[in-house]
Amino acid sequence: MYKYLDKVNSPSDVKSMNTEEMDMLAKDIRKFLVRSVSQTGGHLASNLGIVELTLALHKVFDSPRDKIVWDVGHQSYVHKIVTGRKDDFVSLRQFNGLSGFPKENESPHDIFDTGHSSTSISVAQGIACARDIKNEDGSVIAVIGDGSITGGMALEALNHLGYTNTDMIVILNDNEMSIDKNVGGMSRHLSGIIRNSTANKVKDEVEKILNVAPGGKLISKTANKVKDSIISKFVPQDCAFFDSIGIKYYGPIDGHNTKELIDILNKAKNKKGPILLHVITKKGKGYRYAENEPHKYHGVSKFDIKEGVKSGSSKSISALVGEKLVSMAQEDNRVVAITAAMPSGTGLNIFENKYPNRYYDVGIAEQHATTFSAGLAKSGLKPYFAVYSSFLQRGYDQIIHDVCITKKPVTFLIDRAGIVGNDGETHHGMFDLSYLNSIPNMTVMAPKDSKELELMMDLSLDMDTPVAIRYPRGNSYYLNIGEYTPIKIGSYEVLSQGKDIVILAIGSMVNHAIKAKEMLLNDNINPTIVNARFLKPVDENILKEMFSKHKTVITIEDNVITGGFGSRINKFIIDNKLNLNIVNMGLPEQYVPHGSADEIYDSIGLSPIKIAQKIKNL
Amino acid sequence: MYKYLDKVNSPSDVKSMNTEEMDMLAKDIRKFLVRSVSQTGGHLASNLGIVELTLALHKVFDSPRDKIVWDVGHQSYVHKIVTGRKDDFVSLRQFNGLSGFPKENESPHDIFDTGHSSTSISVAQGIACARDIKNEDGSVIAVIGDGSITGGMALEALNHLGYTNTDMIVILNDNEMSIDKNVGGMSRHLSGIIRNSTANKVKDEVEKILNVAPGGKLISKTANKVKDSIISKFVPQDCAFFDSIGIKYYGPIDGHNTKELIDILNKAKNKKGPILLHVITKKGKGYRYAENEPHKYHGVSKFDIKEGVKSGSSKSISALVGEKLVSMAQEDNRVVAITAAMPSGTGLNIFENKYPNRYYDVGIAEQHATTFSAGLAKSGLKPYFAVYSSFLQRGYDQIIHDVCITKKPVTFLIDRAGIVGNDGETHHGMFDLSYLNSIPNMTVMAPKDSKELELMMDLSLDMDTPVAIRYPRGNSYYLNIGEYTPIKIGSYEVLSQGKDIVILAIGSMVNHAIKAKEMLLNDNINPTIVNARFLKPVDENILKEMFSKHKTVITIEDNVITGGFGSRINKFIIDNKLNLNIVNMGLPEQYVPHGSADEIYDSIGLSPIKIAQKIKNL
Repeated sequence: MYKYLDKVNSPSDVKSMNTEEMDMLAKDIRKFLVRSVSQTGGHLASNLGIVELTLALHKVFDSPRDKIVWDVGHQSYVHKIVTGRKDDFVSLRQFNGLSGFPKENESPHDIFDTGHSSTSISVAQGIACARDIKNEDGSVIAVIGDGSITGGMALEALNHLGYTNTDMIVILNDNEMSIDKNVGGMSRHLSGIIRNSTANKVKDEVEKILNVAPGGKLISKTANKVKDSIISKFVPQDCAFFDSIGIKYYGPIDGHNTKELIDILNKAKNKKGPILLHVITKKGKGYRYAENEPHKYHGVSKFDIKEGVKSGSSKSISALVGEKLVSMAQEDNRVVAITAAMPSGTGLNIFENKYPNRYYDVGIAEQHATTFSAGLAKSGLKPYFAVYSSFLQRGYDQIIHDVCITKKPVTFLIDRAGIVGNDGETHHGMFDLSYLNSIPNMTVMAPKDSKELELMMDLSLDMDTPVAIRYPRGNSYYLNIGEYTPIKIGSYEVLSQGKDIVILAIGSMVNHAIKAKEMLLNDNINPTIVNARFLKPVDENILKEMFSKHKTVITIEDNVITGGFGSRINKFIIDNKLNLNIVNMGLPEQYVPHGSADEIYDSIGLSPIKIAQKIKNL
Repeated sequence: MYKYLDKVNSPSDVKSMNTEEMDMLAKDIRKFLVRSVSQTGGHLASNLGIVELTLALHKVFDSPRDKIVWDVGHQSYVHKIVTGRKDDFVSLRQFNGLSGFPKENESPHDIFDTGHSSTSISVAQGIACARDIKNEDGSVIAVIGDGSITGGMALEALNHLGYTNTDMIVILNDNEMSIDKNVGGMSRHLSGIIRNSTANKVKDEVEKILNVAPGGKLISKTANKVKDSIISKFVPQDCAFFDSIGIKYYGPIDGHNTKELIDILNKAKNKKGPILLHVITKKGKGYRYAENEPHKYHGVSKFDIKEGVKSGSSKSISALVGEKLVSMAQEDNRVVAITAAMPSGTGLNIFENKYPNRYYDVGIAEQHATTFSAGLAKSGLKPYFAVYSSFLQRGYDQIIHDVCITKKPVTFLIDRAGIVGNDGETHHGMFDLSYLNSIPNMTVMAPKDSKELELMMDLSLDMDTPVAIRYPRGNSYYLNIGEYTPIKIGSYEVLSQGKDIVILAIGSMVNHAIKAKEMLLNDNINPTIVNARFLKPVDENILKEMFSKHKTVITIEDNVITGGFGSRINKFIIDNKLNLNIVNMGLPEQYVPHGSADEIYDSIGLSPIKIAQKIKNL
């Protein structure tokens, strides 16, 4: 079916190919990727962009003896294909299937588990330093994007790497994109280098000559050869940024020119000290739709190859948040919005379009975003930092130190809370209720549905202290139960009266609790359901009332069971010396794999039916 | 008593002085600082280094309309003196006294609370962007050290700042030190600039001419004037690093030359866009001992001015950890040590001296340090990352994402856990038991005393999974109670049998519990005391035994009461459906101010006597 791809089952199969064969293999792989991802969903554009680079790496280096560390890892599909996993792509990102990120337990070629950005240089340097201590050899290569390299920890790593002078190769895969268009001073600097590079000037020059020559366009193949021979001389350009901190810069390099890549990697292999190869790639390369709108093809669901990705008819919760924020900003000129390189993922692209001057994309920089927001709040503005739950883990110290000590009125709009599904263990928002729980001066809430989310955003605007609102990934939804009136701080809501058992559910678990109750009614079990919409402060009045009327208390949260909502309720019960049966339900204290959210919730006992069964068995 | 200082009660008193008077004032302030800090303890060397710069800032800018944001803030004493707080220095860092860091509630001149490093550029940019949105004016200045500026979040902020082109001044206070000697590629780059600067070349040239001229040395005053007039022309040098990301660099500037500083700040005030002034200062300037050993005079206890700081006779816990790690490294060549710019604070200077090739100071970079350690562990080494509890908050995501998912055997030696004393709310290690509690795959322990700490380090060496060992600030101490034999994972220790009440104490609270018991025995109350040395895993056997024999359970931890040790014990009791009286003792869910550790523990009910009283009142 694939003339070249079918021959590839391990890196040695790539090693035995010549450049032309590798280019044909690249074509096969692009075809395979588009077909496969169109059927399973997954990360597409980044993988289409990195085909030749991945093949060249496996041609020149000897994985896994030489270590290739992928930053973030959503661009590792080609690497997975080359290292014997192409048949597993039918199960990509599915429950018990192939992960969409490198996983050490999948293959010895996957050197380190990733998912979050900007970790690869630190990991690779650790491996390189260990190699030196143990007097071993072998190359260590970190492959990192131009967005990820501006994350604070990557910059810390570069600062250390330049100083230690460790033999190591950093490959900067520059497509001028994070998920969305990249921002930042360094990004601008790199773009300038690309524009002014010798390679580009030579290319322009050659093309000019050939175009004026008689029949110029016909001899373009020769022209490319001439061009290649000139620019593959491995002449380093200047890159002030990297050179200044002690990392030798080489580039820019055409990331789709296999011969050039192989030449340069071969030379890099024998260089001493830390070097950085600046490789220019095109995100989405080879699939027209993805080339034109790479951000739309970053992560996709199933789609029709001929038609491309179609926008869904239902509105995501993120989009709803973006729209709500726009309407709040219309009413209140203190409202400003901040994202850390996730405008479309968080819905803030909607805000950016409407209020570009009150919108900040700070790059992949959750630490800075948090404290920058605190600075904005210091001056009387109302900053809303929209961020994925698991990425806000990067801003943990800044929440404690810069936002909450002096109660700065920053609101964190925490997207992707709970189980996110196919991105898996690095992306689930399963720790936020725990890590926010113990931070003083913070109000933490989670809505039962999308209408309540809007009401919580209204409440946050009236508050003058730190606020976090967490909500899940997915489409907006409406339960049409309970009241939809302005919310008071620390107020719970009794959604349905029952007897004996009270279920305290937070956030998206309210919906699961309601469905579980419907099932339980068939068994004549009729629990009371409380929408415990504040992690803190708790609603002491409702809790006391509930605990006086019921014998059994069940807490349900889509967060790790340790240290979060259930633990706060436990403490309330203990402090009030109440004698009750308590059952805490939540995510287990272990990492949760990838799959659809429904499958995962069911596997860990948090689907409505599993909740109902557990209650029935009490 | 102080001719010039006595006249200064507000910034306007500095504004009315001429350069010569300001230089005399600087002398007074240095005298005052040495006297005052010698009596109270505090940060000395950094403040001695920044006298002229602080005075020049208050001369040129109009605080608090113009905002001066101090990074870390331990260098803000001169600023506090100038802004009306000199009389409060008798209470510096004492309970209910003047804070050693900027505090918004102390003065409108303190723009933002600080304590951790690398936050100032983010804060200042937030304030500057808010100014622009509100169409206000005024300068915003971040003052940051050459160590702090290499922290990841500062680099994130620079990348954003260079891109937005906001009018803002960053003052890089470069003394080539963090607390210890600074490291990193950027540090080397900056040093190179200083060595090669025009200013230095001019200075050398002038000095050469004058030295060969007849009577040259006598006319050095004239020479200085000539030199000043040349180098104050505000000619920017090149600094590739900052210029490349869009921040205009000016420097190096002599940070002890008042006239030059004033000239340059006046010019900077009217520049557009983000600029960075590279100011060279000498840490400890004006006090001979501090100039010679600035790291020793970074933070000091009371001392005799004539004699200087004397080394104490007792050994700190940090030093004990450093020595123990050396002996472990002697036995096991897998042991490597990592610090984030805290070699002497963590005791790793001892390790560095013995095993420089197995030691890494990565700079102020807790994120990188954590993941770098994971990389070392990946290759079979046993990394020990020694770090202060509150600073490890910066590595929270990396612990979750890079260490614990794949169970890398990194050991975190968490120093300064619990109440640290005079550094106050930003420095207390009060969250670690909570934030580590919910992270899967991690073993978390805290020793009752220094001998047990060594045994825990032995245990960690045998383990092949992530470990955290937390211990307090202070001198090593030995309780001589219980057993000092090799520790098994998850094993508690019953220290004394009593009846009715069982106290489960963790870490340094074991000592408080023992002392409380001594007091309680006088009242015929005889609690059992358990050394609950593992936050997790818990010792299920001992817990079950204890809970079958006692009616009342008291948990004590020097960590915030929410989500930590007590909450884990509560969950165990609830899951086992036991009917017990439970009392959780710990730090309140609020920020804890500065003062001596004893005073603080007493004020929050965790001193032995307060523990005894609470138990008596049950």
